[in-house]
Amino acid sequence: MPDTKPVQSTELKPWHAVAPLLVDVAMGRRPADLVVRNGRWVNVHSGEVIPATDIAIVAGRFAYCGPDASHAIGEKTKVVDAMGRYLVPGLCDAHMHVESGMVTVTEFCRAVIPHGTTSMFIDPHEIANVLGLDGVRLMHDEAMAQAINVFVQMSSCVPSAPGLENAGAELTAEDVAEAMDWPNIIGLGEVMNFPGVAANDATMTGAIAATVKAGKTVGGHYASPDLGLPFHGYVAGGPEDDHEGTRAEDAIARVRQGMKAMLRLGSAWYDVASQIKAVTEQGLDPRNFILCTDDSHSGTLFNDGHMDRVVRHAIAQGLKPVTAIQMATINAAEHFRLQRELGSIAPGRRADFLIVSDLAELAIDEVFARGVRLARSGRLEADIPAYDYPAKAKNTVRLGKELAAEDFDIAAPEGANHVRARVIGVIENQAPTRALEAELGVEDGVVAMDRRNDVCQIALVERHRGTGQVTNGFVSGFGYMQDCAMASSVAHDSHHIIVVGTNKEDMAKAANRLGEVGGGVVLFSKGRELALVEMPIAGLMSDERAEVVARKAAKLTGAMREMGCTLNNAYMQHSLLALVVIPELRISDTGIIDVSNFRKVDLFL
Amino acid sequence: MPDTKPVQSTELKPWHAVAPLLVDVAMGRRPADLVVRNGRWVNVHSGEVIPATDIAIVAGRFAYCGPDASHAIGEKTKVVDAMGRYLVPGLCDAHMHVESGMVTVTEFCRAVIPHGTTSMFIDPHEIANVLGLDGVRLMHDEAMAQAINVFVQMSSCVPSAPGLENAGAELTAEDVAEAMDWPNIIGLGEVMNFPGVAANDATMTGAIAATVKAGKTVGGHYASPDLGLPFHGYVAGGPEDDHEGTRAEDAIARVRQGMKAMLRLGSAWYDVASQIKAVTEQGLDPRNFILCTDDSHSGTLFNDGHMDRVVRHAIAQGLKPVTAIQMATINAAEHFRLQRELGSIAPGRRADFLIVSDLAELAIDEVFARGVRLARSGRLEADIPAYDYPAKAKNTVRLGKELAAEDFDIAAPEGANHVRARVIGVIENQAPTRALEAELGVEDGVVAMDRRNDVCQIALVERHRGTGQVTNGFVSGFGYMQDCAMASSVAHDSHHIIVVGTNKEDMAKAANRLGEVGGGVVLFSKGRELALVEMPIAGLMSDERAEVVARKAAKLTGAMREMGCTLNNAYMQHSLLALVVIPELRISDTGIIDVSNFRKVDLFL
Repeated sequence: MPDTKPVQSTELKPWHAVAPLLVDVAMGRRPADLVVRNGRWVNVHSGEVIPATDIAIVAGRFAYCGPDASHAIGEKTKVVDAMGRYLVPGLCDAHMHVESGMVTVTEFCRAVIPHGTTSMFIDPHEIANVLGLDGVRLMHDEAMAQAINVFVQMSSCVPSAPGLENAGAELTAEDVAEAMDWPNIIGLGEVMNFPGVAANDATMTGAIAATVKAGKTVGGHYASPDLGLPFHGYVAGGPEDDHEGTRAEDAIARVRQGMKAMLRLGSAWYDVASQIKAVTEQGLDPRNFILCTDDSHSGTLFNDGHMDRVVRHAIAQGLKPVTAIQMATINAAEHFRLQRELGSIAPGRRADFLIVSDLAELAIDEVFARGVRLARSGRLEADIPAYDYPAKAKNTVRLGKELAAEDFDIAAPEGANHVRARVIGVIENQAPTRALEAELGVEDGVVAMDRRNDVCQIALVERHRGTGQVTNGFVSGFGYMQDCAMASSVAHDSHHIIVVGTNKEDMAKAANRLGEVGGGVVLFSKGRELALVEMPIAGLMSDERAEVVARKAAKLTGAMREMGCTLNNAYMQHSLLALVVIPELRISDTGIIDVSNFRKVDLFL
Repeated sequence: MPDTKPVQSTELKPWHAVAPLLVDVAMGRRPADLVVRNGRWVNVHSGEVIPATDIAIVAGRFAYCGPDASHAIGEKTKVVDAMGRYLVPGLCDAHMHVESGMVTVTEFCRAVIPHGTTSMFIDPHEIANVLGLDGVRLMHDEAMAQAINVFVQMSSCVPSAPGLENAGAELTAEDVAEAMDWPNIIGLGEVMNFPGVAANDATMTGAIAATVKAGKTVGGHYASPDLGLPFHGYVAGGPEDDHEGTRAEDAIARVRQGMKAMLRLGSAWYDVASQIKAVTEQGLDPRNFILCTDDSHSGTLFNDGHMDRVVRHAIAQGLKPVTAIQMATINAAEHFRLQRELGSIAPGRRADFLIVSDLAELAIDEVFARGVRLARSGRLEADIPAYDYPAKAKNTVRLGKELAAEDFDIAAPEGANHVRARVIGVIENQAPTRALEAELGVEDGVVAMDRRNDVCQIALVERHRGTGQVTNGFVSGFGYMQDCAMASSVAHDSHHIIVVGTNKEDMAKAANRLGEVGGGVVLFSKGRELALVEMPIAGLMSDERAEVVARKAAKLTGAMREMGCTLNNAYMQHSLLALVVIPELRISDTGIIDVSNFRKVDLFL
């Protein structure tokens, strides 16, 4: 096999700008840069697998796909013999948050390229909650610099729940309109404020209109099982897809209404198997189904994969391999109006493709993007330099003071010797929480935790404006049996600091430690730091390699387990406890929130 | 049933502009304009037929589609009971020429609305050859005034064969770029100069680039059975669809390359049955197949139908009804990036739909566009006023002089008493001609026709610039047994006047008559006018009703038959004889053209 030494892709010219070159190569008047011979063409347009196919590539795009590209081979043309293996379009993740990997866009790409991902549609919703439009722009610019295609969905709901929380920034419909002119913005990020859409909230209506006027795609997020009028109202408002369905009936309802059903397999989302039955059992046309991950931890990327994992899983549910691949390639491309640009192996498109030795297993031997081989045998070959974030993106954790154990004291009502308090109940493997209640004792006017009944404290520490404000409450479900506290500056969606602990000294230490390192996750026990994942970029992302982050995160998870926590996705559960858009009970910087009724409630009953 | 008195649709507002209204109706906060109850929802997104469906419409768009729209019914809401009949999206003709119907856009709409057509994608290629960009604009503006959706593809190849013919106008890449800014231009019309694309002709490359930059669709036209390198070169150049395929292998090749295979059933095109086997026998994914008519005569519209005829025909070939309907609705909409605007019954889309009593037969009871009923039981209900064309669009037939029989004399080479001449051979039911030869006598230095062997004369009379120039030649295949001549100012694609006759006096009279009436088709025999269809608009279109034109055309066809002509589509065969882009032998204003080799040849061998 000739040398196909990978280099970082340079700027890609539009198809129409290089069309004469493509035509010349197709016609045999000029040699290709790369020819791959004797592949099985997984054709997502026709739905076929076509043996004995050659492809010729020039200027980063396919110029010829057909039975014989020998006419396109010149002296300097690199030739790869696929030896009968499958040629599969590069995989697309149609909706995802890079921040969930706790790494930069660049490091995320490094991690997923060996898994065959060549296009990602990212919503930098988390950094937007910390740094606003500037944060979106930072990730937008980083995304444009990648060797694979990373398009940005402009975040739509910042803060997620206006009035119930104060984030680090606010985005308006005018911000959305401004961002629509940026070169790498592909559409509007998940419109999470579904009650707002159904109520004709002006910010939502304005953001959607600005997106449609720009000819771009409006991402949806309808996180409710109610398929009645609120669902119909949401659809009429304009969101074009949804990835929050969990049941077959959810997918069916979305597709019938002309939305794309995005089926999600993330680190903690398992929504493909149930919903894909709409196709495998109920026979719906698969063209409006799209696969995505939404949220993947670094550990998942390293241990299980990325979109390759989702496609394998979809095939294992009984989809024809080519159908599953359509859902991870051309279906996503069409949804984002990019079907002439990517998502298939066909003339003019970006030469993003995989050489695969087994289709049902999706065994990926080689990964090419824009005609350049980036990975082989699961190992990155390309030299992808780290991306530097400016100082303004760091040091975003502003506590305003050094916290002490007393900041976590919860004063009982005057004279009470026991109280009945609201408790946020974590539910294993689910994002919603339960609104629990507990009888708690009082010592020296301060409410006591109840470790035996798994009731410990939760605190939300304001960190955007350095107010020193701490909101305290109770949580159950982590199972901590030791003196300990965990703090995280990843605290969806407003990303203050959530501290959960059985010991207030440790709670103070954990929060203060995040102030020192600029954010991340840390676990303390009896004054000792057991594990730390630093995330200095906006307090959300590490600037280290994904494998380093995955190792640190694994250490953290292990330490949580030692403290008694048995939850499957303990860290995610922790980071979601301030997500005041998902029922039932949450904490925010404004207090304890009853999300079922979208209102603030008292801690004590 | 309540009163649903139709009115001509007024201007439709964009979805995002009326979204609050749609949401209000969907949520039950405001009454709909129209509710249709108890239909069977032919859902082209999911591929299902869903019984017991209600739809609610406001502002010309669907607001709610689901099991029960009673919440959207107010005092002034019109309610239609579908009584279990099918609700089918209005049909789309994805590529067609209004001029082939010999009527205006308005009259074409009047004719096809009762057949369920609610969207047409028209290429005003013929008027562009007469009036250039002004002609395109005239039809563009007329198209915008319709009660149904008529989008215009900017004509790309005017003249069709630069160097081999002189049309009434020329269109440049700059013209294309200009037109892309017009509100109703949906893309580039069929790029017929396929050798030009494969040769990187600058006009073609420029026109395609201008279209892509505008985010619009590049229409293709690859009229060759060669699926080798010229085909691959054409695809690499950027055309996105093709309707010139005739064999299953043509459709398969196009779809594999990422083009849309447009399958055509026109008055004289029968390309669906053979190509649909790619789906029904070879199992290709149907999503990239689109139905269209390309060319329909007024007679076909009245006697056989329009897109309803095509859909019925496709179903009769073994397609599931919903699959055939997808090919005439959502597949076309997606191709033109209009899937959020039309092509399905789903919230936000234009409320274009049919009430159908039998799906496989596509028995259309009622036709609605933008929520207004336009036709019922095959009869137009809407009041659609005629559209006036300005004077500059008329009087385009400029002969420059009164023609005499002598203008059609073909002088023999000096001293010859017989000649061997090239003869254009008409092939029954096919657009290509044969390059024949014939031995012909000479009388008084003038070559004689040979009626016994069916060799008569053909002349191309220049009519755009009044030069008085006549190009003479021979044709065989019409079978005229009487003294007669037929003249037509519809003479694809440069639209001079083609005269075919056995008698030169009649040839002169016929041509002169078209000069008097501003164009059309006329048949003379022995000095007497047997039939005339006036087409004063650009010499291409009548300003009368389609049924009147159909009647006159039928009279013409009958008269041709009386003269001995037995061809199936005699008038179309006549009008195609100057089409110097389809092999083998044609006539143009520059002489006799060998189209196989794209060069002018001598009349005599």
